[in-house]
Amino acid sequence: MIPPPADFSRLCLHTMTTRPWALEEAVRRYAAAGVGGITVWRSAFADRSPAAAGELIRSHGLTVVSLCRGGFFPADSPAGRARAVDENRRCVDEAAALGAPHVVLVCGSAPGLPLAESRKQIADGIADVLPHAAASQVRLAIEPLHPMYAADRSAVNTMSQARAICGQLRSPWLGIALDVYHTWWDDRLEDEIRISGREGTLFAFHISDWRTPTADLLEDRGVMGEGCIPIRRIRGWVEEAGFSGFNEVEIFSRRLWASDQAKYLEDIKAAYLAHA
Amino acid sequence: MIPPPADFSRLCLHTMTTRPWALEEAVRRYAAAGVGGITVWRSAFADRSPAAAGELIRSHGLTVVSLCRGGFFPADSPAGRARAVDENRRCVDEAAALGAPHVVLVCGSAPGLPLAESRKQIADGIADVLPHAAASQVRLAIEPLHPMYAADRSAVNTMSQARAICGQLRSPWLGIALDVYHTWWDDRLEDEIRISGREGTLFAFHISDWRTPTADLLEDRGVMGEGCIPIRRIRGWVEEAGFSGFNEVEIFSRRLWASDQAKYLEDIKAAYLAHA
Repeated sequence: MIPPPADFSRLCLHTMTTRPWALEEAVRRYAAAGVGGITVWRSAFADRSPAAAGELIRSHGLTVVSLCRGGFFPADSPAGRARAVDENRRCVDEAAALGAPHVVLVCGSAPGLPLAESRKQIADGIADVLPHAAASQVRLAIEPLHPMYAADRSAVNTMSQARAICGQLRSPWLGIALDVYHTWWDDRLEDEIRISGREGTLFAFHISDWRTPTADLLEDRGVMGEGCIPIRRIRGWVEEAGFSGFNEVEIFSRRLWASDQAKYLEDIKAAYLAHA
Repeated sequence: MIPPPADFSRLCLHTMTTRPWALEEAVRRYAAAGVGGITVWRSAFADRSPAAAGELIRSHGLTVVSLCRGGFFPADSPAGRARAVDENRRCVDEAAALGAPHVVLVCGSAPGLPLAESRKQIADGIADVLPHAAASQVRLAIEPLHPMYAADRSAVNTMSQARAICGQLRSPWLGIALDVYHTWWDDRLEDEIRISGREGTLFAFHISDWRTPTADLLEDRGVMGEGCIPIRRIRGWVEEAGFSGFNEVEIFSRRLWASDQAKYLEDIKAAYLAHA
């Protein structure tokens, strides 16, 4: 039996979770709710610099957990791939300025390219960004995405694929962001988490829930407990594997974005204690 | 380079692909189009018995390729699981009466059950049906379903899981129905097809395409060539693995069902030669 979280000190929210709130309101509300951490999406920099965003966040006593998101490496031309690498270096710079220890990578996939080619381009792209990440002391976290995103968002669809890239590039600056929404179906998940923990690549842990039925491939995630993912059990595996970081709530949901965000934040806190 | 199909003799359509046509019209149209085979969904028995459906089909010179679909084994009570096994035995009887060599299994998943438990119940359910299948000379074909259906349609989501069940139950009456829509993303697919061919479990091959974006989890498949699945390459792997059965077009699409079905059938034939 895995006990519930003792408090909200390891609870982190992604700014995208409460998308209707601009960064300043999100930071103020999260801090008032006792949430411990925040993961910043780049869209939050629309009206302030990454450095100013970092100051704002720390002045409210919150921890910057990560920056979302880099990646999208595959492209059908060398120029396109070079642009992606440049963009990822900028993303690393932003993370450094923000004070985020790592950048989450949604690795990308080009519908016109064979998956094997997209996967090769992803590893090549990460290899090209890694020296700058290391020099900036910003880690890169590959997020395996659900296979339903294989065509256009990420050709890295399992922990084992992410782990293979980490094994190929072998750098303390490269690891994995594990999201239960993307990986809960995988019968190898428990083993992969254990191995990844042993290899020191378990950098981040994202939670949300899978609703039945799911009405939209992108924006119909559920709050923990609204679906069928055994979130607490998976958190148990992750912690047994040595992970002691934040539990990051990352929910894209048109339904929930349309609801009262203050109440939604309270619901997330209750769901966190009950199901995470 | 894998050559295109020489003709339509190995082309099979699922009755669900042209859902607006009742069985009689589908059979007449497929035969007139020179299509070689038909896979019958149980809903086609609404107005005639399986035996009469089989006679109708053969009288038009078509081959009955399979019956869709059995499965849905997991349930949260022993009574529910027993009902599922009974239903699958009836399905075997219908396949025998129809003259279908196998029943495709969409194995099921219960959102309230852990996936590992659903997977165990699936293997148990198949084990209970297998003696009746063998006695009836009807094969059972496990269809791995895309991970996006893990919550409610099938907890068997990869070829490797299907193969593990085949390995556990070891019967010449048990194999796999491979569908490119469900499995194309899997980096183990080529290896799994080769092994499955060697083990003699490659019973059926379904084709359609993955559209980008995909608007609906269930009913937005594409005709071959409308999406990004390397269908011809996968057919090459399947044939190298020894498969010489039908290429079954199984497309669920509200968009295409709403279109002129006679034109749609011609489009499928053209797409088959161009992309399958």
